[in-house]
Amino acid sequence: METHPLDEALRLERLEEGLWRGAPARPYANMAGPFGGWTAAILLNAVMLDERRLADPIALTVNYCAAILAEPFVIEAKLQRGGRTTQHWSLELKQEGAVAATASVVCGVRKPVWSHAAARASEAPRWDALPRASMAERPEWTRRYDMRFAAGGLDDFPRADGEIRSARSLVWLQDFPARPLDFPALAALSDAFFVRIMVARGTWQPMATVTLTSYFHLGDEELRALGAAPLLGEADGAVFRGGFADQSCSLWSEDGRLVANGVQATWYKE
Amino acid sequence: METHPLDEALRLERLEEGLWRGAPARPYANMAGPFGGWTAAILLNAVMLDERRLADPIALTVNYCAAILAEPFVIEAKLQRGGRTTQHWSLELKQEGAVAATASVVCGVRKPVWSHAAARASEAPRWDALPRASMAERPEWTRRYDMRFAAGGLDDFPRADGEIRSARSLVWLQDFPARPLDFPALAALSDAFFVRIMVARGTWQPMATVTLTSYFHLGDEELRALGAAPLLGEADGAVFRGGFADQSCSLWSEDGRLVANGVQATWYKE
Repeated sequence: METHPLDEALRLERLEEGLWRGAPARPYANMAGPFGGWTAAILLNAVMLDERRLADPIALTVNYCAAILAEPFVIEAKLQRGGRTTQHWSLELKQEGAVAATASVVCGVRKPVWSHAAARASEAPRWDALPRASMAERPEWTRRYDMRFAAGGLDDFPRADGEIRSARSLVWLQDFPARPLDFPALAALSDAFFVRIMVARGTWQPMATVTLTSYFHLGDEELRALGAAPLLGEADGAVFRGGFADQSCSLWSEDGRLVANGVQATWYKE
Repeated sequence: METHPLDEALRLERLEEGLWRGAPARPYANMAGPFGGWTAAILLNAVMLDERRLADPIALTVNYCAAILAEPFVIEAKLQRGGRTTQHWSLELKQEGAVAATASVVCGVRKPVWSHAAARASEAPRWDALPRASMAERPEWTRRYDMRFAAGGLDDFPRADGEIRSARSLVWLQDFPARPLDFPALAALSDAFFVRIMVARGTWQPMATVTLTSYFHLGDEELRALGAAPLLGEADGAVFRGGFADQSCSLWSEDGRLVANGVQATWYKE
């Protein structure tokens, strides 16, 4: 069986405790440097692989400090503080001695306590009732996903009509080829929503994720039990102002559980 | 004129470049250690005061690693990477050599480019049409705020009726006494929403913010122009599961502009 491109792309070589070496993978290339979701996933993976890890990840924040070059990097993972329930990590991804990305990860022990699903997934057609979006003339990383839009797709992108549309998308997302879900894959999926300015304004212009935060709501066993299933993703943006914009996203299982949600701040040029 | 308690509480003594000393302030005390909004504000303040700062803050993430003791601490602020448009900072708050909190801050130069307010504030009565919530028998920090609930208040908290309510609150928030808005005050306000389990479940139990992310959407001049005005805050939670929950919030000016929004992950015991 061939190794899945995501597993290839997330390989890290352990140099010493908390020090890892890796390299960007061409299959997850974006316009300039790698897809930000891959960056999130490989930073999280440095914690997933660490023998000091206490429990599943609860939260991940990634700060995109500079374009990552197509050459090897090191990741330094520092265990900042650990208790019986939570563990806090700080990470730096460095190339040529300079920090290109930083991250923080919170791991936490889930317990069989009171639980309550307050929010519900939006109504959407089944994923197999929707066509797979074409990724022709899109960056390489987009072809690593099967995306099926129920709303807010990019069929007529870029547009020059000047119309401002809703910033919301509703889309079934899955690794392509299909791959069992795990936390790094989920971290990448949290960034697989296109930058909202593309949806709302319809323009192609310099833009980038500046910082991203994702929360994971299922434990490892629950996540693995989902297998290689598509997730219903919803993304929206509240404001575009002065060259920065926010966006939020949520990812739901086919049976309606919230698997992950998060936010990001993006930069745009004009 | 007396110094406002928030300004007292956010004092930092510069030891050297990127190294500051401060201490928790009793007026912002919570049940165990200080109010998390104060922690967010003082970490941000270490960047606000730094002469290397390029521009206004765009994003702040704070990780609450351990209870902060009632004694002096140091904050180390590392400028991880700076460009012409953005600057990335990492911070550590240490007591007795151990890290009690970490943070990352993104600063960014706002430009007069295309802007668009996609989201709208919820309808609410004017703040002066609502009564100020009583903070009797609440932690000390709550008395540093004027809170006027339009929905999701805590008048009958704690409850033992077992009823699960909406996790949503709509509340006018203002420093008390009133104080002109700035970024540290806004960082604190982003955490001034009570932990959502109190609203939804109505129970009083061990709980804490684990990590918080806030995005700021107005520039310094726009923020100062708001003066000492109340902000309309809206908070909600999507899921409570296995001892961890998420919550989101947004803060709006009286004239309907999104001033800040963000998310946090919280821990609860049972």
